[in-house]
Amino acid sequence: MHQYKTPIKDIHFVLDTLNYSQHCQNIGAVEATDDMIEAILEEAAKFCEQILAPLNQVGDQEGCQFNDGAVTTPTGFKEAYVQWVENGWPSLAQKEEFGGQGMPESLGNVINELGGSANWAWAMYSGLSHGAMNTLELHGTKQQKEEYLKPLVSGQWTGTMCLTEPQCGTDLGLLNTKALPNDDGSYNIDGTKIFISAGEHDLAENIVHIVLARMPDSPLGSRGISLFIVPKLLAGEKNNVICGSIEHKMGIHGNATCVMNFDGAKGFLIGPKNKGLNCMFTFMNFARIATAVQGLSTMELAYQGSLAYAKERRSMRSLTGTKSPAEPADLIIEHADVRRMLLTQKAFAEGSRMLIYQLGLYVDIAKQEVQNEDTKRADEFLGLLTPIAKAFITEAGCESANLGMQVFGGHGYIKEWGMEQIVRDARISTLYEGTTGIQALDLLGRKVLSNRGAVLKKFTKEIQVFCKKSKKIKEMKPFASRLIKLSKEWSGLTLRIGLKARKNRDEVNAACVEYLMYSGYTVLAYMWAQMAFSAYTALQNPACENKQMYINKIQTCEFYYQRLLPRTRGLKDCLLGGCETLMQMSADEF
Amino acid sequence: MHQYKTPIKDIHFVLDTLNYSQHCQNIGAVEATDDMIEAILEEAAKFCEQILAPLNQVGDQEGCQFNDGAVTTPTGFKEAYVQWVENGWPSLAQKEEFGGQGMPESLGNVINELGGSANWAWAMYSGLSHGAMNTLELHGTKQQKEEYLKPLVSGQWTGTMCLTEPQCGTDLGLLNTKALPNDDGSYNIDGTKIFISAGEHDLAENIVHIVLARMPDSPLGSRGISLFIVPKLLAGEKNNVICGSIEHKMGIHGNATCVMNFDGAKGFLIGPKNKGLNCMFTFMNFARIATAVQGLSTMELAYQGSLAYAKERRSMRSLTGTKSPAEPADLIIEHADVRRMLLTQKAFAEGSRMLIYQLGLYVDIAKQEVQNEDTKRADEFLGLLTPIAKAFITEAGCESANLGMQVFGGHGYIKEWGMEQIVRDARISTLYEGTTGIQALDLLGRKVLSNRGAVLKKFTKEIQVFCKKSKKIKEMKPFASRLIKLSKEWSGLTLRIGLKARKNRDEVNAACVEYLMYSGYTVLAYMWAQMAFSAYTALQNPACENKQMYINKIQTCEFYYQRLLPRTRGLKDCLLGGCETLMQMSADEF
Repeated sequence: MHQYKTPIKDIHFVLDTLNYSQHCQNIGAVEATDDMIEAILEEAAKFCEQILAPLNQVGDQEGCQFNDGAVTTPTGFKEAYVQWVENGWPSLAQKEEFGGQGMPESLGNVINELGGSANWAWAMYSGLSHGAMNTLELHGTKQQKEEYLKPLVSGQWTGTMCLTEPQCGTDLGLLNTKALPNDDGSYNIDGTKIFISAGEHDLAENIVHIVLARMPDSPLGSRGISLFIVPKLLAGEKNNVICGSIEHKMGIHGNATCVMNFDGAKGFLIGPKNKGLNCMFTFMNFARIATAVQGLSTMELAYQGSLAYAKERRSMRSLTGTKSPAEPADLIIEHADVRRMLLTQKAFAEGSRMLIYQLGLYVDIAKQEVQNEDTKRADEFLGLLTPIAKAFITEAGCESANLGMQVFGGHGYIKEWGMEQIVRDARISTLYEGTTGIQALDLLGRKVLSNRGAVLKKFTKEIQVFCKKSKKIKEMKPFASRLIKLSKEWSGLTLRIGLKARKNRDEVNAACVEYLMYSGYTVLAYMWAQMAFSAYTALQNPACENKQMYINKIQTCEFYYQRLLPRTRGLKDCLLGGCETLMQMSADEF
Repeated sequence: MHQYKTPIKDIHFVLDTLNYSQHCQNIGAVEATDDMIEAILEEAAKFCEQILAPLNQVGDQEGCQFNDGAVTTPTGFKEAYVQWVENGWPSLAQKEEFGGQGMPESLGNVINELGGSANWAWAMYSGLSHGAMNTLELHGTKQQKEEYLKPLVSGQWTGTMCLTEPQCGTDLGLLNTKALPNDDGSYNIDGTKIFISAGEHDLAENIVHIVLARMPDSPLGSRGISLFIVPKLLAGEKNNVICGSIEHKMGIHGNATCVMNFDGAKGFLIGPKNKGLNCMFTFMNFARIATAVQGLSTMELAYQGSLAYAKERRSMRSLTGTKSPAEPADLIIEHADVRRMLLTQKAFAEGSRMLIYQLGLYVDIAKQEVQNEDTKRADEFLGLLTPIAKAFITEAGCESANLGMQVFGGHGYIKEWGMEQIVRDARISTLYEGTTGIQALDLLGRKVLSNRGAVLKKFTKEIQVFCKKSKKIKEMKPFASRLIKLSKEWSGLTLRIGLKARKNRDEVNAACVEYLMYSGYTVLAYMWAQMAFSAYTALQNPACENKQMYINKIQTCEFYYQRLLPRTRGLKDCLLGGCETLMQMSADEF
């Protein structure tokens, strides 16, 4: 089985393309110098490759054990977590006032890919804390921050977000969990939450649950939901929250997915009463980007695995003549169709990395204290691009995982090669934190049509400005022309759906998934064009050292434009098919 | 968890569309009357629903146990097999002279779907015997048929095909297994075979392995391979063939995938020396159609599961207004995007069923003793359509399985709902019996370009004739026009690749998978048009009884043409991207 190697060069290439160290200076993260970033990346790479990656298959095989409310994580998980905390990783991108190291959130985002590729199931334990930290930082009182945020930042404790209930996932307005006020200002929480990742485990001494619940006098539906802090241990004593069972899942076996029973558990209101869902939205973007990272991690891991196999396995002769005359057959990487699969994974991975880092930059900028045109733009683009990144990158991640398996032929189906685990682990990514359909509805309904395409227009305008600028390098012209056309087509398509939707709202839901995928291919084309521009620019320097790498980046961009981007044409024609053939059958005629 | 129900109405609709009982009379299967077919289907449905389906999840959870050469199948598998044999199912479509019941092979094909949907892992045990039976029937001596074929036909024994070795799957020319001649005319077989489905188990008293091996004086490569019969028990005594281990796989846990060690096992030559691969080809079409059936079974099972959930689960309100005012939320089947997923599965399943039955008819016809224009045409179309059916239906089967899971949201990822098992079980189908890439190369290279598109031309001509005929029903015009255009585009596309391939053979391998998928969508459009024509014709009868069903068939056809068929446009443009961007990078630059 191939062991994960951090794609350090590719990471630095994207950071350079984005002028990342300048960005860090701009946002006031003065300590994030080139040298510092390089050192952090190196250390993270070492940890992920040496400690986390070897536990990935172990985690899948052993899974978590549940026994009378307690969860035991797989062999080695706890030791790795302790070391992770000792090395200070949880606090890397947290604010100094809460014990953090003050590095930009975008850098945490970069590191997340490494942990995710090495061992996603493990990485979720610390990853899930972010939702709780985010909520505490934005909505907690000073005392709540002191009490709960600090041990989360240090990694001493972990956190969860308790949203889903058996009868509701997407539609949180249906939730039943109750919060009864006590005289001391605390609340008694009653209800059952399901699908709580890292809801119970043996890695840390305490777990802080952020729970959505309804007060007795709150209205029904989504406007009557509030947020509560419910710690597993309260001043060292057991609270009345217990893990009822863990789910048996297709993958991510190393991560405990818990049923959490709140049986009069003591909780504390955080944020304004009945505004729980609004407070959640601040966390949603983060969680979606983190899930997009899972897609990227999947692509990278699947690519590395299948590439290693394609350079080792021999079968048949190349159609253009023998490549290894001394061997009984050629390496399968000599076959065009195997290359199509490898390059698809590679182009997805490198393009998605650029998109995810770009989102990280927007997060940093949007959070700046002084709000101006730049922060507004970052916030708007973050809103527009986050559902695209979440759904497109996870869908393309699943495709990459399946292609990785496909390169292995029948061996891909056998557990020991590790490829089928990637497929199983990745499969959750298009479901949790909002399914692909939900992201698509958010994109088309809320982020595009509800502002009459204004933000999209701003974004496509930016693409067009870039295209014009990039044409000063003549080799960029084919990319730029294609991209300008596409960005105009994107706007036109949006307009057409918008007009149809005025007559029939179902048109939005009927078109949204293919619209999102179309948008994803277009956005990735923009990412790739920027990387090609960056590579051409680097090659113009006579002292350029990594010539071959830059040439290969341009070649991968060419592959993307020639062999993947045309998928937009099928997506466009499918979505223009409209909603009539979807809705004409009555439900019981199906 | 939803329990499988045989889609009897849908099956009869396709049989009627194909004028199946007339076909049976034409090929001389006079006993296969309408009544007889109906009775057989009913009995098969009962067995599959009541006996096999309840064992499907059990098989996945328990898997097969390996202990010192012996394999124990999951609880209930053996009892089901005994009953299957007692009921006479193995011999249904076998020749009477070997103890069969003389029903057409096409009817066996119909029944295979039922067993496959109910429990694919179980169905493989009897399914795998077909390869051995086929080989024995076509290439065995009279004595070999007497000795080995008859107990296979009765189901008393099962059979395998032993092809793959650790170093070779697709490229069988690399195989190492040796066959040393003994003085008595038998051979000693030495070597290791892997991925032998049903290679060892406890269902039947003996297992007949058909083994590919090389004699000492045979040439290297694919021209030095012969076929051998190697029984597990030889006149009741153990032969030197032993199961070394079973594989741990992503899915189909109930079926034993065996490493088979031949250690001087006694074997008998079957068919001409060194012509083993040629003899294999006669079996290949059957095995591929059987795998296409797995794709169909997957579609049907996934569709049924997600449909049941979509009619039960409530979330959000329909975008066009509340549908269930008395309930807190609408059924998810009211959402256009959920319908898109359901209809995709439905349109794939029903279209693929038609294609698979059509192939069954070609098999029957091609096997007729008197060879004429009809048998030639059937044989040619079988050659052309089999790789399309195998690869397209299994790929679309995997898509359907994943959509089925997606409809369930997070619940789809949890084992107890059964949807993730469908995804895992289905995933092997695009790998075994030749990967999608191998089918695609067979299609474009051997079946299309090597005869300069002659067979394809014959087939598209037939489509066009049908389209002209169908226009006598005016509602058929939109389908017919679209299909005529598409069939011409298909030919044009083939010509363009052919021309490019003259200069560079890699163009074939670079284009083939998207070419195959393009062909698949086109062929399914032809299948759907025929079904729509059949439905319109039925509706013209004033005494038509199943009006609603026919209307729904037409509506599903409309969905297919509006929302799935346009995918050809993306496929076409992607494959026209050519091989340059695939081949320009050197292998070590990846």
